[in-house]
Amino acid sequence: MHRDTASQRLHGDLIGQPGSRDRLNTPALILDADAFARNVARMADFARRHGLILRPHAKSHKSADIARAQLASGAVGLCCAKLGEAEALAAEGIDGLHLTSPVVTPPGIARLAALARRIAALSIVADHPDVVDALAVAAQGGPPLTVFVDIDPGIHRTGVASPQEAVALARRIADHPSLRYGGVQFYCGAQQHIQDFAERRAAIVERTDYLSTCLAALTAADLAPAIVTGGGTGSHVIDAELGVLTELQVGSYIFMDREYSDCDLGDGGAKPFETALLVDAGVISANAPGLVTIDAGLKAFATDTGPPAILAGAGESARYRFMGDEHGAVIGPDLPGIGARITLGTPHCDPTVNLYDAYHVIRGDVLTAIWPVTARGRSA
Amino acid sequence: MHRDTASQRLHGDLIGQPGSRDRLNTPALILDADAFARNVARMADFARRHGLILRPHAKSHKSADIARAQLASGAVGLCCAKLGEAEALAAEGIDGLHLTSPVVTPPGIARLAALARRIAALSIVADHPDVVDALAVAAQGGPPLTVFVDIDPGIHRTGVASPQEAVALARRIADHPSLRYGGVQFYCGAQQHIQDFAERRAAIVERTDYLSTCLAALTAADLAPAIVTGGGTGSHVIDAELGVLTELQVGSYIFMDREYSDCDLGDGGAKPFETALLVDAGVISANAPGLVTIDAGLKAFATDTGPPAILAGAGESARYRFMGDEHGAVIGPDLPGIGARITLGTPHCDPTVNLYDAYHVIRGDVLTAIWPVTARGRSA
Repeated sequence: MHRDTASQRLHGDLIGQPGSRDRLNTPALILDADAFARNVARMADFARRHGLILRPHAKSHKSADIARAQLASGAVGLCCAKLGEAEALAAEGIDGLHLTSPVVTPPGIARLAALARRIAALSIVADHPDVVDALAVAAQGGPPLTVFVDIDPGIHRTGVASPQEAVALARRIADHPSLRYGGVQFYCGAQQHIQDFAERRAAIVERTDYLSTCLAALTAADLAPAIVTGGGTGSHVIDAELGVLTELQVGSYIFMDREYSDCDLGDGGAKPFETALLVDAGVISANAPGLVTIDAGLKAFATDTGPPAILAGAGESARYRFMGDEHGAVIGPDLPGIGARITLGTPHCDPTVNLYDAYHVIRGDVLTAIWPVTARGRSA
Repeated sequence: MHRDTASQRLHGDLIGQPGSRDRLNTPALILDADAFARNVARMADFARRHGLILRPHAKSHKSADIARAQLASGAVGLCCAKLGEAEALAAEGIDGLHLTSPVVTPPGIARLAALARRIAALSIVADHPDVVDALAVAAQGGPPLTVFVDIDPGIHRTGVASPQEAVALARRIADHPSLRYGGVQFYCGAQQHIQDFAERRAAIVERTDYLSTCLAALTAADLAPAIVTGGGTGSHVIDAELGVLTELQVGSYIFMDREYSDCDLGDGGAKPFETALLVDAGVISANAPGLVTIDAGLKAFATDTGPPAILAGAGESARYRFMGDEHGAVIGPDLPGIGARITLGTPHCDPTVNLYDAYHVIRGDVLTAIWPVTARGRSA
């Protein structure tokens, strides 16, 4: 079932062997199996306790194996950012897929309609009447396609711009016999990473007030949504408290990159989620005082949120600096020699995962599995 | 021979059809076939005119098809940054490979020795005596492995730190019967992107003086290098003028990203190379005044050198802003509507190519071929 990756050819024989983590060719994307399993269970438990539907976002992991773990713990399905991501997961048997971005071109809509015929449950957002009409034409002759009204929370990325437009678009969806009106989506992307919890809460409260205005308009028009989907790892505690969303699209909680680890998520300061995603790199040169060069650079980490953190192998105060496409400098007073391993945390998990073909699933010092990044690069 | 990519499944039927470029699912990595061919021919001609060996760097393109075009125009082989890159190209029949970074771990050295037995010509750099000894042990029983002394040009990434160490390492290589002393490598990575030509020239002249000191020490020790390899697109005119390097490792000239297009390369201001690498994106939302959202974000462009340039489809003054993992904002007074296409230039070509599985080779408005990014993600 798994795609054959270079890492499986190189490392397949190491699975289950003591000390195998230290024999991986580097740089290697590492998933800490126990921390990951605890993260999955904790969010599933959180959603259950608060009566929320859980539909985690696959754009973070792009992995059929991780999707299966989330489904096994109680998720109803997965969100996907792109059609190619949904196609790749569907090909691995993942169902219950919700596309969180509009698909608008004729070839894209044709692919979407074909995918809707291959799996049991597929939904998508729309934010424009012409696109709704095109979806309706494409869905004719197949099962009804479920369409959500995407409401812009003010960041102007996608979504309709007012309660009136939300009502008009919902009605347009509901009026097409080949479509099913699924509800609304409201994703406060810009607010997820506000570092201070109180500030983040105030921003989400203000935006949720606007969402409530939209929902009231829909209800008054007899278009009350069955599902209100949205939220992220940064807002999930606030979303549960406010009780307006009915479904959570959380993604990064399974990994906890540096960005989110720097956030107080508001669950009593208990830091409910653990860093589970790492990169193991190797020292390839050590000829300068106070600096060693590792084999992980711009092609090993997303660079949009600064450098990765050094978690093990180079002393407490060591710092990383990008040194071109293939290399990084590790700078500090207590550095290892050539051939040593240094473990780093990811600065921003989603685009970092997208650089790799496989997760190396680790328990202690043992490689326990190699999981392909099923939908890597499927941006179209 | 070609790896089956999602794009080949989606777009294979479009090859050769009029207007097929506009029917590609987006975002799509685009290679302008004619501009690319002219770039390849011009650098080959430049190297011939100056009596320089041409061994272009495959880390920029990671493509067996592009490697074949470069070999056909007179390149003697290809440089690779990582072992996995070399393995992937070798599996497609590309030979004459030079590894520009040290390989130092036992599993890496074992893979290197195995690769040396599979192809006709393989060389690698080293910058530490212990690694030279380990390479010698691994090469025993096979053909001699060619090893270059990597000399640090002062950026402290890789390379020996002094002329004395260069001599000692060259001697160590020459003394091992299982190794062959290939010469030296000297790559001024930090100097390639100095925007002003005179400043760049002064920096390269100063560093080449240091290289000449190293070469004099080697010659005095009867270890004069047969090959002095290095240089890049930013320095090739200066390198040819100075006449110390004998082999060029240029990479980006085939694509000309925004970084290099902003540089005066010094060939009489004639701008000898053209932008050949593009990304076609699609407008998926257009609900805010003065802003449309396209389907290309942090997973579609490397972010280490700022935003991509907008080249076509959105008016002269349009600007791009990253809007998360999957989306970008295009801002301007004259924007297209939903479903329209916008063409962007890449900010930094190497790590952008590494995000995609395939090049869409275009002549005019026709898709003429789909070339896999053969070594995509092969960072280990």
